[in-house]
Amino acid sequence: MNREKALRLVKDQLTERRYVHTLGVVETAIRLAEVYKVDVQKAELAAIFHDYAKFRDKEEMRQIIIDQKMPQDLLQHHDELWHAPVGSYLVEKEAGVSDPEVLEAIRCHTSGKINMSSLDKVLYLADYIEPGRDFPGVQQVRDSAETSLDIAVIQAMKNTISFLLKRNQPIYPDTFHAYNDMTMKVKERKLT
Amino acid sequence: MNREKALRLVKDQLTERRYVHTLGVVETAIRLAEVYKVDVQKAELAAIFHDYAKFRDKEEMRQIIIDQKMPQDLLQHHDELWHAPVGSYLVEKEAGVSDPEVLEAIRCHTSGKINMSSLDKVLYLADYIEPGRDFPGVQQVRDSAETSLDIAVIQAMKNTISFLLKRNQPIYPDTFHAYNDMTMKVKERKLT
Repeated sequence: MNREKALRLVKDQLTERRYVHTLGVVETAIRLAEVYKVDVQKAELAAIFHDYAKFRDKEEMRQIIIDQKMPQDLLQHHDELWHAPVGSYLVEKEAGVSDPEVLEAIRCHTSGKINMSSLDKVLYLADYIEPGRDFPGVQQVRDSAETSLDIAVIQAMKNTISFLLKRNQPIYPDTFHAYNDMTMKVKERKLT
Repeated sequence: MNREKALRLVKDQLTERRYVHTLGVVETAIRLAEVYKVDVQKAELAAIFHDYAKFRDKEEMRQIIIDQKMPQDLLQHHDELWHAPVGSYLVEKEAGVSDPEVLEAIRCHTSGKINMSSLDKVLYLADYIEPGRDFPGVQQVRDSAETSLDIAVIQAMKNTISFLLKRNQPIYPDTFHAYNDMTMKVKERKLT
């Protein structure tokens, strides 16, 4: 699918503000993909569609999570998490995106997961540091992203977990497992 | 087992400093048990023996974790976690403690777990706030312990997770699940 058609499809689904965010994620994902030798076209496509389901009706999303046998513990956690796996499903069904790596990057772009691919990490990080983002700690993650994809992703995850802890919010298990998985792998690499 | 015999058995296993810590945990656990209507004798016994394996040889502990088919992921995490499940096993085997609730409180006193009993919480919290403890955030947890066992335990868990995040340390899954479980239950109680 060409960029223009993809952006048109996504624009219909989003608020103007969210569309601007999406353009920031696209730009950032392309740059990160170039730096970290990730397929630039896949990164661009995943970034364009990552928030496709952001404004879907909550009940529709809940029903899709049930009907498509997605992890049911999603329903016990904040609905902010739902648009990622639901978006991955709808992007395939409605927009005809079929690349499994792109769909997987969209699916885990909010929560993270164990064994993230480089493409998954690029989208996760681009979503966190795109130029429109402005929250405590984001500049440090941007700086880290210049030199290490893994360190930057770990920092973003740490910030997310700390943010949730401060608000007494539960932490979705995939996020916690992603953090553990990545910190352990970085430690192992340092030891070898 | 009477208090004096139990303390004698434990004293042999610990440094002087750790024995003083244990006495602080005993005193605090008894007080918490009285306030929160937990069996005081069980709380006292669990507190006396909670650090029984603290200074066991690491290789002996590793072998017990393997031989007794304890969760093998313990071995990938910091050995600071090992003395709790290993201690629970040794306290039964060597000191003849047989009460399953006491043994379980000892087993999970460092990591926490899903569905902690009130006795589990009393020991976990007493270990965290006993008078000899002096680290950032401990006084806030002590204050909370005056009015809510659950809120105090959640605060202690949050401090522990934040401490590990700051040091880029992985977080043992039971700790994370305990935090999620308790925050979700407190939220549900507030909603009903």
